[in-house]
Amino acid sequence: MSKGEFDLIETYFAPLAAAEPGSLNLKDDAAVLRFGQGRETVVTTDCLVSGVHFLPDDPPETLAAKLIGVNFSDLASMGATPRFFTIAAAFPRTLDEEWVRRFAEGIKGSQARFGGVLVGGDTVSTDGAMTLTLTAFGEVPEGTAIKRSGAKPGDALFVTGVIGDAYAGLRLLQGGYDHLPASDKDYLTERYRKPSPQLEIGDMVRGIASAMIDVSDGLAADLGHLCEASGVGGVVDSKAVPLSSAVAKLLAEHHLTYEEILTGGDDYELLFSVPANKINDLEAVRLSFETPISRIGTAKESREVIFKDGNIRLDLDKTGYQHF
Amino acid sequence: MSKGEFDLIETYFAPLAAAEPGSLNLKDDAAVLRFGQGRETVVTTDCLVSGVHFLPDDPPETLAAKLIGVNFSDLASMGATPRFFTIAAAFPRTLDEEWVRRFAEGIKGSQARFGGVLVGGDTVSTDGAMTLTLTAFGEVPEGTAIKRSGAKPGDALFVTGVIGDAYAGLRLLQGGYDHLPASDKDYLTERYRKPSPQLEIGDMVRGIASAMIDVSDGLAADLGHLCEASGVGGVVDSKAVPLSSAVAKLLAEHHLTYEEILTGGDDYELLFSVPANKINDLEAVRLSFETPISRIGTAKESREVIFKDGNIRLDLDKTGYQHF
Repeated sequence: MSKGEFDLIETYFAPLAAAEPGSLNLKDDAAVLRFGQGRETVVTTDCLVSGVHFLPDDPPETLAAKLIGVNFSDLASMGATPRFFTIAAAFPRTLDEEWVRRFAEGIKGSQARFGGVLVGGDTVSTDGAMTLTLTAFGEVPEGTAIKRSGAKPGDALFVTGVIGDAYAGLRLLQGGYDHLPASDKDYLTERYRKPSPQLEIGDMVRGIASAMIDVSDGLAADLGHLCEASGVGGVVDSKAVPLSSAVAKLLAEHHLTYEEILTGGDDYELLFSVPANKINDLEAVRLSFETPISRIGTAKESREVIFKDGNIRLDLDKTGYQHF
Repeated sequence: MSKGEFDLIETYFAPLAAAEPGSLNLKDDAAVLRFGQGRETVVTTDCLVSGVHFLPDDPPETLAAKLIGVNFSDLASMGATPRFFTIAAAFPRTLDEEWVRRFAEGIKGSQARFGGVLVGGDTVSTDGAMTLTLTAFGEVPEGTAIKRSGAKPGDALFVTGVIGDAYAGLRLLQGGYDHLPASDKDYLTERYRKPSPQLEIGDMVRGIASAMIDVSDGLAADLGHLCEASGVGGVVDSKAVPLSSAVAKLLAEHHLTYEEILTGGDDYELLFSVPANKINDLEAVRLSFETPISRIGTAKESREVIFKDGNIRLDLDKTGYQHF
């Protein structure tokens, strides 16, 4: 790259920080930030490695959206609202400046869509795979963050949006599903490349959800994490798991199994439990969103998570899935 | 590695987070933190890539110390006190568990020495170079963070500790300086591998220093950054730049030049400006530290930084050094 680190930052990244004076225009040793009174700061960090978490030829705009999306999804899963973020980027030496310009465009788009301002970062060179780390800072009113650990036996289990799109999108980008119509291909690719963190729903279910997690490792694994942290088990009706028409079609045509849908990752939807006395409150929330919020099962007093009709059982005392 | 991500975190990293309940034992999607009332949060992130920022055979304990040290040095340069940090680690697949255990030991040592608690992170695999990103959160009383931009013409320029050790330590690890006694070799190696962020001095000069930066890119470059941000120039007496006896010896023997000392990086000392009416306050601070705090020059109304007897001049309107 012809431009050095300081020039790249000044040209492409400093404009993204302009909305927050505490970023000091990315020109100082650190940012100086104020968080609101009576609020707690919610912090998460996620690292994406080329060839592991994204495809080397993913467009820079959607890669930026993914980097922000996966981290903001962690904020959403705590019920938090994004305020700030930092990005540390290890760029291959061979990267061209146009790539960086487009990556910055992607950040700008996500900032406009979800809020949160870039306040710091580090740009270094690597001879290895591109490695991008984002650290996100959100806020919640004190004591209201939704943890994984609050589910009780009998709580209803809900999931936002649809499940399995990102897995199908990845399979498609790896050369599968050539028979799909272009509109389905575009939809699934977009869902894989550009997750939409469910920040508004996460914000609205504070005080309603007893436990929440985002679906990043796969619905089965993440329900396992939530149950494990809460000391409960669960039963899910696999047929109640909401699917897009594209994934439903692939399932009907036997191009995709329930097992793949339930264990595939990267959907970045929210999975949460709701006690019986809060179900009416949740109904009000459901009505205010176009995004479906679907009941998929119930938390149980057990040490296993069973997906009925999905051929998956998770024994929480053992690692991994059992198939039956 | 035989252990998966979750086991590694539970075994080696969760114990480091135990002191902060808001870390949720590294088991949730995010940490939930409270910052003090009437305080500002100071945030910095630095990324270290194997083969670029550290040597592939650096011991894991000192690498952890370096990762924390370089970030805490940025906090020190704002006058901030460390509170929390997150680490995102892209580990090569071939790394063994013992390496991770020793790396966690190093984190523990730095936490004990400097304060600050691990509150979150991400552990992923890479086929490329090990890439470690730390994001550090410090605090300062509201409105007291020391920026790079406050120096005025006439302010005295000070530096903490000694300069050039890290550069000499790197040269030594790359096979140079074989003639040095073992004690000098150990000292210089340690200084390269394990920077000591000057947090206490940084904290004490709030209200005294008009501008501050940490010396990471080299004394000349970082004084350039400080002058640039402050809109001043500077004159430095190179012979007043404090040296360790090991570096002084290398300089006297012509194994090292002033130019190398002034442009070599990684010392992680503090460089700051002090107005005339605060010099007495600084004297009181100097008396309370064993670490030398040395006056090396004066800020000037000009667009250049001159190192007298160091053969370096920085023209702030151009990039890089001019030699004369």
